[in-house]
Amino acid sequence: MLTPVDLREIPTPALVLDLPRLRANAAFMAGRAAQLGVRLRPHLKTAKCAEVARLATRGQFGGITVSTLAEAAFFLGHGFADLTLAVELPPTKVAPVLDLVRHGARMTVLVDSPESAAALRDACAAAELPHPVRALVEVDCGDRRGGLPAESPALVSLARLLHGARNLELAGVLTHAGHSYACAGVPEIVAVAEQERAAAVAAAARLREAGLPCDTVSVGSTPTATHARDLRGVTEMRPGVYLLGDLDQVGLASMGRDRVAATVLATVIGHYPARNTLLVDAGGLALSKDTSAQRHGPRIGYGLVLDMPGRELEGLYVYRTNQEHGHVTADAPLPYDRLPIGSRVRVMPNHICMTAAAYDCFHVVEGDTTVVAQWPRVNGW
Amino acid sequence: MLTPVDLREIPTPALVLDLPRLRANAAFMAGRAAQLGVRLRPHLKTAKCAEVARLATRGQFGGITVSTLAEAAFFLGHGFADLTLAVELPPTKVAPVLDLVRHGARMTVLVDSPESAAALRDACAAAELPHPVRALVEVDCGDRRGGLPAESPALVSLARLLHGARNLELAGVLTHAGHSYACAGVPEIVAVAEQERAAAVAAAARLREAGLPCDTVSVGSTPTATHARDLRGVTEMRPGVYLLGDLDQVGLASMGRDRVAATVLATVIGHYPARNTLLVDAGGLALSKDTSAQRHGPRIGYGLVLDMPGRELEGLYVYRTNQEHGHVTADAPLPYDRLPIGSRVRVMPNHICMTAAAYDCFHVVEGDTTVVAQWPRVNGW
Repeated sequence: MLTPVDLREIPTPALVLDLPRLRANAAFMAGRAAQLGVRLRPHLKTAKCAEVARLATRGQFGGITVSTLAEAAFFLGHGFADLTLAVELPPTKVAPVLDLVRHGARMTVLVDSPESAAALRDACAAAELPHPVRALVEVDCGDRRGGLPAESPALVSLARLLHGARNLELAGVLTHAGHSYACAGVPEIVAVAEQERAAAVAAAARLREAGLPCDTVSVGSTPTATHARDLRGVTEMRPGVYLLGDLDQVGLASMGRDRVAATVLATVIGHYPARNTLLVDAGGLALSKDTSAQRHGPRIGYGLVLDMPGRELEGLYVYRTNQEHGHVTADAPLPYDRLPIGSRVRVMPNHICMTAAAYDCFHVVEGDTTVVAQWPRVNGW
Repeated sequence: MLTPVDLREIPTPALVLDLPRLRANAAFMAGRAAQLGVRLRPHLKTAKCAEVARLATRGQFGGITVSTLAEAAFFLGHGFADLTLAVELPPTKVAPVLDLVRHGARMTVLVDSPESAAALRDACAAAELPHPVRALVEVDCGDRRGGLPAESPALVSLARLLHGARNLELAGVLTHAGHSYACAGVPEIVAVAEQERAAAVAAAARLREAGLPCDTVSVGSTPTATHARDLRGVTEMRPGVYLLGDLDQVGLASMGRDRVAATVLATVIGHYPARNTLLVDAGGLALSKDTSAQRHGPRIGYGLVLDMPGRELEGLYVYRTNQEHGHVTADAPLPYDRLPIGSRVRVMPNHICMTAAAYDCFHVVEGDTTVVAQWPRVNGW
């Protein structure tokens, strides 16, 4: 866009991104990676945005992490060729991965079953590719999502399936400490980060002992990347939500509220003083139904209400949502005079990965309420 | 599309719509409207799809209900001109409504505050319009979302503000029994339906007693439209979710599971027999984080797992989600042999309004797994 506009002119609900905070978040994690001596392969499943990816990879080696084929194609189209697709690859998604490789992508994929490994191996062997697909064996470090335990006998046999085939390269191991999200306090997160590191490093050692290659030892989640004491033996980390931030990350001590960069712009559409509520036009679709941050304390609901420059309105939060309605209250009487019908607020959400998915673009603000850019996002699959 | 394909060829996750069930749902509610002697103005906030709107308005007067300006513009572009925007209209959204009117829409809007009424009145008076905007006063029948109680002294004064202005027509009253969703059992829903009817009719009587026009007395939610004993004094109803259905509507006895028309197509991506789980590629983004149906019973989680033709797989449900992962389990050992890695399932979600919003189109099936059409949806605002 040619002329900056003001947030007051954007139709609501809308997704707002605070550029100075985004820059601070990117710099923070770049500093962590340097301090820990690992490469930073930021996960773009949260931001789903090329401009954010550029900021996140500035000064890094350029690789990124994605969670869908749609993200992979989008980022390849924006010049990001080194892509790790960090969700277990079923046999039915091998062909689209090979298409991406033919279009220039350096694809690294994730496998935790012999069925998927065999399908990948056979398809690669049968294909003409400009360079090999790289495969990581997934390790379960305690999250009980995907992956094999580091000590599983199946780990080495799975790696052997992926090694030595035509157009396929065994790259190493990957794990994700998703269970860091269930931690209560930094000492627990530090312990989970060490569990994550230790599992990945132990799995890598088992591959190497078996004579298999393992150049990549990949870990990462925003809480563990923020709080890990050291990452000896790890080669890369893949945090993602740190770029935007949310109330759950604040509760997990990944950041202060003053670093949450993404908020939802909303309009006040009704006043109900008899029950000390007001309605905004950001409801369950605009905020998402994710309530993960509620475990960190009361008066969080579906998000905290901020004023237009992004300062907290003391104690106001969205306590209930309908599809297009957010119900706002507070313990104290609401400041109706400061929030007339038609005025605007911003809402800091629980879990930005879920919230952002409702929007096609970020309205990027720099300094209070001046919109300096619209940055497209890729949703869907 | 020219050639029918099979659900086995569609990239996952994807949104599937069973056409025979959709037709049955549309016919059911058309029958209810005829039986109750009211006009059916289906709410398209759930389906957000022109083809669904055509089926839902077949044999009806043609008016529909929408919840966003994006839906209004989309449906106007598809030939639906009689549009009720059933969310409180703030002063900042009056101008886009007038634009829709200039493009041929017969807009009916909703007001529950003097601020919004005055802004609407002034903007209409200052505009050149081909026909008036119609305004409804919103009545709160117990949901405590928007609206004024039927007995509120402010009701008549608000209606007076909307009456007699240039390019503006006081159309009547509207209420929505959203609290029907909190009912336990049909007798409670029947009672809430009567509360909804009585509140709307009482508010209409007060307007008429004050010498004000009130040609529209509008009620509606899928549970109350399904179970209302009678709607004396009501002119139209606005249910919406009945078209697609979901587990919450099944729990509310709006339909049987055999009438739920929308499901999420997913691929099995991992087997974890040690903990009796498997992973599918439909997670929190593909299913939504809405868990409203969990109150109806155990073993619902984020959705029930069906086989490809849409039959229930006994007891399988998604008990946990990550962004791109759905964790499936059951009380009995999972049938891994019937669900190999790379095979497909369908998931019946909790709350389809939230789930469908992640998708740009429906893959329409007729008879088991044959995809006969792709129908676009309008998301965003």
